[in-house]
Amino acid sequence: MAKIALMGYGVVGSGLIELIDNNKSKIDNLEVSSILVRCLSKHEGKKYSEYLTDNVEEFFSQESDIVVEVMGSLHPAYEYVKRALQAKKHVVTANKDLIAEYGGELLSLAKESGVTLKFEASVGGGIPILKPLIESLEGNSIKSIRGILNGTTNYILTKMYNENVDYEEALKEAQALGFAEANPDSDVLGYDAARKLAILSTIAYKNRISWKNINIEGINNLERQDFIYAKELGYRIKLIAESIMEGDQVYASVRPALVKEGSILSTINNEVNGVVFHGDAVGEVSFTGKGAGMLPTGSAVFGDVLDIIRGRKETSENYLNEILVNRYIDSEVGVLIRIKTEEKKNVIKKLRLEFPDLQLVGEKRDELALYMNTLGETKIHDALERLKLEGNIISFKKLLRAV
Amino acid sequence: MAKIALMGYGVVGSGLIELIDNNKSKIDNLEVSSILVRCLSKHEGKKYSEYLTDNVEEFFSQESDIVVEVMGSLHPAYEYVKRALQAKKHVVTANKDLIAEYGGELLSLAKESGVTLKFEASVGGGIPILKPLIESLEGNSIKSIRGILNGTTNYILTKMYNENVDYEEALKEAQALGFAEANPDSDVLGYDAARKLAILSTIAYKNRISWKNINIEGINNLERQDFIYAKELGYRIKLIAESIMEGDQVYASVRPALVKEGSILSTINNEVNGVVFHGDAVGEVSFTGKGAGMLPTGSAVFGDVLDIIRGRKETSENYLNEILVNRYIDSEVGVLIRIKTEEKKNVIKKLRLEFPDLQLVGEKRDELALYMNTLGETKIHDALERLKLEGNIISFKKLLRAV
Repeated sequence: MAKIALMGYGVVGSGLIELIDNNKSKIDNLEVSSILVRCLSKHEGKKYSEYLTDNVEEFFSQESDIVVEVMGSLHPAYEYVKRALQAKKHVVTANKDLIAEYGGELLSLAKESGVTLKFEASVGGGIPILKPLIESLEGNSIKSIRGILNGTTNYILTKMYNENVDYEEALKEAQALGFAEANPDSDVLGYDAARKLAILSTIAYKNRISWKNINIEGINNLERQDFIYAKELGYRIKLIAESIMEGDQVYASVRPALVKEGSILSTINNEVNGVVFHGDAVGEVSFTGKGAGMLPTGSAVFGDVLDIIRGRKETSENYLNEILVNRYIDSEVGVLIRIKTEEKKNVIKKLRLEFPDLQLVGEKRDELALYMNTLGETKIHDALERLKLEGNIISFKKLLRAV
Repeated sequence: MAKIALMGYGVVGSGLIELIDNNKSKIDNLEVSSILVRCLSKHEGKKYSEYLTDNVEEFFSQESDIVVEVMGSLHPAYEYVKRALQAKKHVVTANKDLIAEYGGELLSLAKESGVTLKFEASVGGGIPILKPLIESLEGNSIKSIRGILNGTTNYILTKMYNENVDYEEALKEAQALGFAEANPDSDVLGYDAARKLAILSTIAYKNRISWKNINIEGINNLERQDFIYAKELGYRIKLIAESIMEGDQVYASVRPALVKEGSILSTINNEVNGVVFHGDAVGEVSFTGKGAGMLPTGSAVFGDVLDIIRGRKETSENYLNEILVNRYIDSEVGVLIRIKTEEKKNVIKKLRLEFPDLQLVGEKRDELALYMNTLGETKIHDALERLKLEGNIISFKKLLRAV
């Protein structure tokens, strides 16, 4: 009989409890031993309320084999998980902030204690991503990762694309429907996706990629007009989390990008998440599904718990060697540019010298929308900065194509 | 040190050998001990040729821990795998025919012998499908499976859609490029996909689904005109392998179906495979990637080998209780119908009484193409049979929409 001690009894915790109950007839060697919450009265009347405690000492004094952390945020989750591992408990967590920040340290600690730390639910909610990456694709060198890892922003961008509404309006509706938090910064500014990309990249490239070194751009500056231009070119706009291993360098970014209609990533809409790995042996494999929610995330946490009780140990290691993250991807790429200028003809003429395939997507009184292919983002960026310096353009905004 | 004995040294066997070599620096506890082939001279000059033997007794007399079967076909693979299991060797196989036919028996035998039988590569080539299904989604009841499981037919159908060529022309090109065999029957008649669907369904629904009970329709009767009509309605045509659990019954079919442009399945083209599971907790999750090929399939075989040497045992059980497979899916579905008739107006009038949303897609001198929604395939099928009996129509052909 494996005893489960639960830290946190919110959405994901409730999902896990429901799955433990639903699966009683198939999996009968699981038992809830204690549930730690901040406020007892908030959880009155819930299932297993006899196991509730708001006293951390009492919680840790109860017998348990596996501690499940679904409280979220960095503190006190970090301290509690550390304490659990030191007490030689296996730990399952859904906490991406925790793993992105302290994953290496906590994995080391788990190893020292001879226990397992698992965190499938921290990336992509219910979608099996980490297990296939770590176990099934172990014989591959991963060349790149490209994904839609944040449901809130994907919901907003899908709405902006489908209904051609402004960012603020889409955000408000996402908040009203519970897809976005009252303070949506961590999602809309790209931090949440960057933490998930850091976890995936660290595992895939076997070197630590810190999320703080990732080039992050949120969706909050996107305008209705960006979608109109993108649509005209046959693209959607998605918040793409992408990293590429080249030689011994990793390029990593989270930013809005153009995604070709008809590609797998273009079909990932609303709150769905998805990721495409490129492995040297397997080629491209993709995984999609619900990136959040009570039962989807609960399903991933439950899978981790079952792995532990079945003795299936994965080999996720603590890669502490941090490697350089470059900010620009200098391979051939298509780019949509919006330029504020009073000299439209002159700007087109000058740019066409360097970018002969330049295509006019649209124009307004003082604006040009252009699409072109360039050998490296640096090249187009430098060209635009030069035109700005020379006074030909007032400002510019660019959206790269995700391959 | 784990000793690997290989049965078969064709495409997949060579892929595995390449991966063992490529990963030597990371995974150094693997050793090839023997390779069984039919004809020695065919493999002269290949890597590890010093381990080749065409003598099955000699092969089994060599020390080994894991036997990898990549010879294909039912016999003698069945006899050899049985012998390996009886000798208490772990077995990894890529052989879908073998597992679809004898999976239950072989899993029982493995259990008796205290060894592991793994077969990730038998469905979806390099895509991790069985492991996520068996391990990550264990807390879910699977409600349905929908997939594109055969690369040869998907290549042909993609070509017919993109280039509007006839079936025979697309098949010939697939053969010339090595995507289809000289005798393509097992692929184009749907048997290969049905075997894979049977393996997936047996695992997902925990009851044996025999591929012989699946409603199978090949792609060989598809015509250029079917694609023209489908395109007009915003659909592609794919060979869809589908099974649905309803109550204690399973509905299972492999047949050409309409797939909505913009859906995940519509983006799976050429030799790519993909599958969508619907789990009660996780919702829809999908997996896509290369369904065949030396290194992709080798990657899946290698993953199974690593699972065994790392002691990660999955719980794939031998479900021997065969359950009924119904042939028609009686939920609401859209259907494209082509009708040969001399009484076009009359037929439309009669059908509209029962199917008020009937839509005229196209017509020729003696042909009608109609699209309608129906509550169950039986209903439309019966209506058409009745019109045929009454002499209003000469023949009909239908293509259902895959949900």
